[in-house]
Amino acid sequence: MAYELYYWPSIQGRGEFVRLALEEAGAEYVDIARRTGGVAAMQRLMEDARAAQPPFAPPFLKDGDVLIGQTANILLYLGRRHGLAPREETGRLWAHQLQLTIADVVDEAHDAHHPIASSLYYEDQKAEARRRAGDFIANRIPKYLGYFERVLERNLRGERHLIGRRVSYCDLSLFQLVAGLRYAFPRAMSRLEPHFVRIIALHDRIATRPRIAAYLKSARRIPFNEQGVFRHYPELDAAN
Amino acid sequence: MAYELYYWPSIQGRGEFVRLALEEAGAEYVDIARRTGGVAAMQRLMEDARAAQPPFAPPFLKDGDVLIGQTANILLYLGRRHGLAPREETGRLWAHQLQLTIADVVDEAHDAHHPIASSLYYEDQKAEARRRAGDFIANRIPKYLGYFERVLERNLRGERHLIGRRVSYCDLSLFQLVAGLRYAFPRAMSRLEPHFVRIIALHDRIATRPRIAAYLKSARRIPFNEQGVFRHYPELDAAN
Repeated sequence: MAYELYYWPSIQGRGEFVRLALEEAGAEYVDIARRTGGVAAMQRLMEDARAAQPPFAPPFLKDGDVLIGQTANILLYLGRRHGLAPREETGRLWAHQLQLTIADVVDEAHDAHHPIASSLYYEDQKAEARRRAGDFIANRIPKYLGYFERVLERNLRGERHLIGRRVSYCDLSLFQLVAGLRYAFPRAMSRLEPHFVRIIALHDRIATRPRIAAYLKSARRIPFNEQGVFRHYPELDAAN
Repeated sequence: MAYELYYWPSIQGRGEFVRLALEEAGAEYVDIARRTGGVAAMQRLMEDARAAQPPFAPPFLKDGDVLIGQTANILLYLGRRHGLAPREETGRLWAHQLQLTIADVVDEAHDAHHPIASSLYYEDQKAEARRRAGDFIANRIPKYLGYFERVLERNLRGERHLIGRRVSYCDLSLFQLVAGLRYAFPRAMSRLEPHFVRIIALHDRIATRPRIAAYLKSARRIPFNEQGVFRHYPELDAAN
């Protein structure tokens, strides 16, 4: 039976990390909210008063009777089923730890344009966003990318992957993180990238994996835009 | 062999969610950084250039050769070993999903006093903090607590626990969330609490569990303070 992915239909957002894993796995899935009436179906499911295990927010994944929320949790589940993470517990937890750290950067990338409140327009927190994005670019991106660069460098099985010698959902997520940061902060990233050659090489390799390459060219890949997590506001991409 | 917990010695912070699970489990553990020279030991471990799987930040837990980072990931590991989460996969993922949602609120509680940058003093982002805390109190706390209240209400095994009929690490974490929010925003919480009677009842029950009660009275429980995640700045606890 096909997986059902529930996520906002017009953005990559956090759902994209799940989409990439499903695509790399060659898994059958339906991106529910992108079908006619799909957003309403998603909202019905979230508000279903009979649901004993309601998700807090999209994305969530339905696999038959199982409903799983929280991006990293979904990947923990999929990784095990599709060989996208180590099998044994220690490796599985290491993969999950990396994914949670990627999730932390993603949260901060979001807050770079919405430092005060998600419920307010960007325009209503633009001054604050400028300050926060400045710190994100100057301190946080280098700190996080420095970390992932070290993890690649120290992988005992070689620096082509974050974990072992096979692709994992963490590699896919790191690809997406780089793609998102490049979209949002092109000037900052072009200055930073020379310091993170292993990460950039990984990004480029992931983009050429047959299923990922096919996905990226397809209409299933929603373009980046200014409703998602990664937003390009030139005034936030300052040369600081 | 005793677990080794690595976390900042002067705050509850994110490490407290791990401490509570270890205490409830009656597990032997050493809170490394609280011993003489412990912070240096923690930093050496983080900066160890030979470490193949370095943690990004505290807390992390050492169990023999296994080193696990990210709070929710540590709880995933401990939950399984100490009966603090359901055994089968679906229940385990549900517990983890709830924990990740608690982690999200905790991040937001932190950003309520540091909306611009962790690297800046609170005093340097006070105006922004006032705006963000206002939204946190008006919109986010009610949204999150409303969610956990529903989860309690819908638990098929009764509303005494978030999951099934036994205590899980999620219950301990929800206790800590309430304790932290009460410390940081006493006025806001006294107004909100009547809407979340199941959560408050759970908080009160957890506080009286023998091991938790003993822990809370002990010197091992660090008092809340203005270096941690939950900080009491009266000007942020506005009557809005």
